[in-house]
Amino acid sequence: MVRIGIDVGGTGIQMGVVDPEGRILQKGGIVTRTDLPFPEQVAQMAACAKDTLQRSGHTLEELESIGAGVPGVADYRTGVIPFCTNLGWHNVPFREEFQKHFAKPIYIDNDATVAGLAESVAGVSAGTSSSVFITLGTGVGGGIVIGGRVWSGAHGVGSEIGHMTLELDGEPCTCGNRGCLERYCSATAIIRMAREQLQKHPDSLIMTLCDGDPARVEAKTVFDAAREGDPTALKVFRRFISCLAQAINSITALLDPEIFVLGGGVSKAGSFLLDAVRAEVPRYALYKMLPLPRIELARLGADAGIIGAAMLQ
Amino acid sequence: MVRIGIDVGGTGIQMGVVDPEGRILQKGGIVTRTDLPFPEQVAQMAACAKDTLQRSGHTLEELESIGAGVPGVADYRTGVIPFCTNLGWHNVPFREEFQKHFAKPIYIDNDATVAGLAESVAGVSAGTSSSVFITLGTGVGGGIVIGGRVWSGAHGVGSEIGHMTLELDGEPCTCGNRGCLERYCSATAIIRMAREQLQKHPDSLIMTLCDGDPARVEAKTVFDAAREGDPTALKVFRRFISCLAQAINSITALLDPEIFVLGGGVSKAGSFLLDAVRAEVPRYALYKMLPLPRIELARLGADAGIIGAAMLQ
Repeated sequence: MVRIGIDVGGTGIQMGVVDPEGRILQKGGIVTRTDLPFPEQVAQMAACAKDTLQRSGHTLEELESIGAGVPGVADYRTGVIPFCTNLGWHNVPFREEFQKHFAKPIYIDNDATVAGLAESVAGVSAGTSSSVFITLGTGVGGGIVIGGRVWSGAHGVGSEIGHMTLELDGEPCTCGNRGCLERYCSATAIIRMAREQLQKHPDSLIMTLCDGDPARVEAKTVFDAAREGDPTALKVFRRFISCLAQAINSITALLDPEIFVLGGGVSKAGSFLLDAVRAEVPRYALYKMLPLPRIELARLGADAGIIGAAMLQ
Repeated sequence: MVRIGIDVGGTGIQMGVVDPEGRILQKGGIVTRTDLPFPEQVAQMAACAKDTLQRSGHTLEELESIGAGVPGVADYRTGVIPFCTNLGWHNVPFREEFQKHFAKPIYIDNDATVAGLAESVAGVSAGTSSSVFITLGTGVGGGIVIGGRVWSGAHGVGSEIGHMTLELDGEPCTCGNRGCLERYCSATAIIRMAREQLQKHPDSLIMTLCDGDPARVEAKTVFDAAREGDPTALKVFRRFISCLAQAINSITALLDPEIFVLGGGVSKAGSFLLDAVRAEVPRYALYKMLPLPRIELARLGADAGIIGAAMLQ
């Protein structure tokens, strides 16, 4: 038996035929067409899925299910997607529409949740029964696995790690609240903190690396300068690590998973990030003598979306 | 079949024979004797359990299991209790010791977790599949039920809601960290905020109610004065409600349970507390159009510890 996993993105839709161990047997993809009506978008996805299945050499009879990860809120119970802003979807009946093309079980969930599931099936957290996946990108997303199964909450809006409160009355967030975790633990946060510091320390290596234009600072610029020992970059880096460690401690206090998996663009900093986080987290441990969750980097990269979507059930 | 639930407290140990629906059929209890060696303490508990079972009219053959809720960290997998400060226990093999007296399955968990389980079996959250129980007392504790089962974490230290970070670099906590949730959402927090306000507003009704001695302020004093419309008390009350609402929002962002259950001493304020929390939480909702978790007051009171311990499995 095989499954199809669909990674729905704002610019492209990637999919793959996946075996029960989470190996991608065949890939396919189409460009995202937000200009088309929703039923047309689904028809194009379904056509690509049929084509990819055929190219994999597997039949419709061998297809167990289809799963999709979407960059928004997905109600796994009803198959409805209440919000998916990048795709222009509001309250679209994804499952119902997709089943017009495939008489198979159709599963949906949030893209970060799906990536977390992928890591727990075929990636760094494989073999664990509880994990929290944290995507550190423009924002902060999350995927929770408990008892080997995805937990997306009773209303499909769980694992929105980025919008946990990390500071009462803190930095304003795009969601309308203040002090959300992603204001302190995302690439966006690193850039904001770097720009603030550059006003006081224009002599920082960060400024050199961004050709004297703070508008061009990226998280990577700060990490690169920090690696070189630039004091301003190190200050930003250490603050970021401290905030991330407190966020991890906060999630541990509530959920205490077996393992944390760090993914997303910021995680490309690799061991420079991982070593610093691993060193900082124990400082905030509630019970210093008890074992702490492991912390690892995500392994599956861009394929996680396809693999995890296929594994939904 | 029946089960025995044991509620281990620092001053007394209450227990009961409980039926599968969570009804207490017979109660028993002993005084906590921290002066005795651990095996002696367990022997006394076991003797009381045998006596209570006999008085219930049920036989050992009808006894399915024994569960205990302890005010500390309990490792449900190993049956070991790493920390239970009030009892003076450190790394005690509770299950192993208890099984010398009862050849039955012995389960342990944290007392707040157990109280949350009780509410989800026989209390206000009965019939729900996911719930977060929050005890608002001297500190803040929690109990998480997901998919109908208790979730205490991979290392038995989950649902320590009180030690989630709510404010970076915030109020110092007894745990050694800063800005822990219980510094803002407990009776202790209400008292601290009230004393701070009394320095600026000694004319507050709070001062009258505590006979002019701020050392005698309790959470109830502040609630009583707030009910009377005292501006200083209302200021403290509203800040407390705002912090609690942000804490609930934070847990919702991560876990999105079907229901929150508020217990502990502070919850005795009843609808005055509940109405205010229910009105405040939606202000912080991430998705204003989607359903939010219900919020209710705990119903089982002091019996929750016995009922929930009996339901452990």
